[in-house]
Amino acid sequence: MLGAIEAGGTKFVCAVGDESGKILERFQVSTTVPEETIPWVIEFFKKYPIQAIGIGSFGPIDVNRESPTYGMITTTPKTAWRDFLFVDTFKEAFSVPVGFNTDVNAAALGESVLGAAKGLDSCLYITVGTGIGAGAIVQGELLQGWSHPEMGHILVRRHPNDEYKGKCPYHADCLEGLAAGPAIEERWGAQGIHLVERSEVWEMEGYYIAQALMQYILVLSPKKIILGGGVMNQKQVFTSIYKFLPELLNDYITLPKLSNYIVSPGLGDNAGITGSLLLAHRALLEAGLEK
Amino acid sequence: MLGAIEAGGTKFVCAVGDESGKILERFQVSTTVPEETIPWVIEFFKKYPIQAIGIGSFGPIDVNRESPTYGMITTTPKTAWRDFLFVDTFKEAFSVPVGFNTDVNAAALGESVLGAAKGLDSCLYITVGTGIGAGAIVQGELLQGWSHPEMGHILVRRHPNDEYKGKCPYHADCLEGLAAGPAIEERWGAQGIHLVERSEVWEMEGYYIAQALMQYILVLSPKKIILGGGVMNQKQVFTSIYKFLPELLNDYITLPKLSNYIVSPGLGDNAGITGSLLLAHRALLEAGLEK
Repeated sequence: MLGAIEAGGTKFVCAVGDESGKILERFQVSTTVPEETIPWVIEFFKKYPIQAIGIGSFGPIDVNRESPTYGMITTTPKTAWRDFLFVDTFKEAFSVPVGFNTDVNAAALGESVLGAAKGLDSCLYITVGTGIGAGAIVQGELLQGWSHPEMGHILVRRHPNDEYKGKCPYHADCLEGLAAGPAIEERWGAQGIHLVERSEVWEMEGYYIAQALMQYILVLSPKKIILGGGVMNQKQVFTSIYKFLPELLNDYITLPKLSNYIVSPGLGDNAGITGSLLLAHRALLEAGLEK
Repeated sequence: MLGAIEAGGTKFVCAVGDESGKILERFQVSTTVPEETIPWVIEFFKKYPIQAIGIGSFGPIDVNRESPTYGMITTTPKTAWRDFLFVDTFKEAFSVPVGFNTDVNAAALGESVLGAAKGLDSCLYITVGTGIGAGAIVQGELLQGWSHPEMGHILVRRHPNDEYKGKCPYHADCLEGLAAGPAIEERWGAQGIHLVERSEVWEMEGYYIAQALMQYILVLSPKKIILGGGVMNQKQVFTSIYKFLPELLNDYITLPKLSNYIVSPGLGDNAGITGSLLLAHRALLEAGLEK
């Protein structure tokens, strides 16, 4: 049995299951401070004979195994979680192998093995919600280099009708600063769910995401792009992306049919937790322990 | 003995050598039309007992082995070369394994194995010259997905003092349209080599390249960035990049010391041809033929 944690900025989703993505039991707890949240998580897993744990975490985190701070949450604005020893905490509590990556890399893994990119050795998973983040599978492996990707903060050009200043505390009007949920709410004066009828909102949203996709495609050339997160529940955004992306690329490169290429998660809201189960399974295999 | 071709838009550089990067003989011919250029190249290699050929080519090219047009130059503006069967031509002429990738991916491979990124499993090689292109090594492998990267065409924001319209026939003011050699020449009315004393030229150049590097870093997180090509011979551009990049990233992510992280090619002008030798060696190994 495998344990999985999808550690998000608002809640921790925990599950036990197996590497086929089957979830046997689930548990959820608010992300407050480690001293409160983590004991609940440990208590949940203690009930099961888990052989490994996979963690897909909000970030930034240190995923570089050669680093002294490997397995930690690093410079997050959620100060209570800064320097939290995520991997060590669970290794100590359970004495099992622990897989650790970003929440979006976990989701990308889930989608590539069991979801919309099943059978492909390359995909990009992007979440557009309270923040914007992305994970990628490149030639069958989770993309990692010096650190993990931070694709949500790339720069985009402003929509000509957009005078909103941007919400990112680091870059003001980067992609996340202009297109994540809180930016939509501040720009238009209402939460996205109350703006469904206002087509200009979703047209502009698609304009920004299409620009980001253009950059990602030119750099990574993924075989499939999966767009999840609360904002992407507004299917009008896909329509806007399908309109703007070809205008931007202007036939410079040939892509598959966009409605097959840029899609919703095949695993729905389970991409992250399923990917975390797969991270657990990989950790088990790496440790040389049969499941 | 291995054969290598660095197929550029103005010249073909050919060499015979080995996988240590040792070059025994070199040959160079202008890139005119395939009927003229290719026979010279074949004649050069016929003099040597080559066991494999590696080709690093200008593009776009088809590098997807499952594609019916694998091994061809595709939608290049150099119309005489469109649909040229690069791999097939050399397989037929020499009956040896042929490795095939973009010129910049070849250079990235050369730099990662024998150059400035030696010992690292990740790097990004960017050339800024008549065009702008980039190749990347991710977890030890050449980055490839649906196709090869086309990073030179990402969008950047305009410098506030720049009124130049941009030179890219597809995207007007993308990175290549604003920062490649021909754009510098058209904007400032003289070739780069005659603008050495004008610091505003190189400051603006660094402004655009720093923006591009920001995007590449956020997406790929390379362990080393290598900047080659004629424009980068103006070392002032590095100074401008080291100034603008930290302003743009604004401490959002931690990077190595920039002067160690963003560097000139360790192999100098030989990055591409050396990488092509390595492509040949990989093709040989893949074919199961000992060298």
